[in-house]
Amino acid sequence: MGDLEIRRVVAEDVPAIVGMLADDPLGAQRESPDDLTPYMAALDRVSSAPNQHLMVAVRDGSVIGTLQLTIIPGLSRKGTTRSIIEAVRIHADERGSGLGTQLIQWAIDESRRQGCALVQLTSDTSRTEAHRFYERLGFEASHVGFKLHL
Amino acid sequence: MGDLEIRRVVAEDVPAIVGMLADDPLGAQRESPDDLTPYMAALDRVSSAPNQHLMVAVRDGSVIGTLQLTIIPGLSRKGTTRSIIEAVRIHADERGSGLGTQLIQWAIDESRRQGCALVQLTSDTSRTEAHRFYERLGFEASHVGFKLHL
Repeated sequence: MGDLEIRRVVAEDVPAIVGMLADDPLGAQRESPDDLTPYMAALDRVSSAPNQHLMVAVRDGSVIGTLQLTIIPGLSRKGTTRSIIEAVRIHADERGSGLGTQLIQWAIDESRRQGCALVQLTSDTSRTEAHRFYERLGFEASHVGFKLHL
Repeated sequence: MGDLEIRRVVAEDVPAIVGMLADDPLGAQRESPDDLTPYMAALDRVSSAPNQHLMVAVRDGSVIGTLQLTIIPGLSRKGTTRSIIEAVRIHADERGSGLGTQLIQWAIDESRRQGCALVQLTSDTSRTEAHRFYERLGFEASHVGFKLHL
């Protein structure tokens, strides 16, 4: 097994990312892997936004994981900068391999490098296995996550 | 009662904002209203970050509310741009006045203007009154919010 590389997303990664987003009980209902147009437009928006780190994990030339890290400066908690992790996906063949831990650890380390004192994320209430995963990594389930669809 | 204005934060607003952040069961333990230095540095970081909208609600020259809105482009959900609301505070004298609803409505309207299809926020599990408030505004408590302190 080759070395794991975690690097920024480029356009060529988009099909593999969308494949992972769609290969998921929730994602299957809300992604469109047959039409990449909205994803390519979204990649342009992400790439031009500072404070955004849209990453892939790559091994032996294959994209096997992804996550998005956003750095958010703010006034509360004595001017704490926080980070938010979104859109964590691990390729089906790699689940249970420890890759999820490596990706989240990358996000934690990068958050520290960027001066964050807090890392946060939300996980759908149905993803109980993911909840145990985050708790093992030291995250505390201290909040309720609300969403409003526009 | 004068008109309500919702506008971007300037340095002169910081003492009033920190006062509101600290006037709260959770905030009392983690803010330092007697030393504004870290907050002024944080305001510089927020002001230089695009996609950040740190706002105050002002009436008759007084700051009576605040929130922070962050716009986050992303690939998931067919390239959905989402927004995140953080650090919502209403001055003690204004609670129950409908100001919270006006502030959140501003954030929803601004999110729509910025092309967001989703607005999200987290609220400490102990803030049950806030949870009912967000549900009345149409938010769904669909997620668990995790935090890791660095």
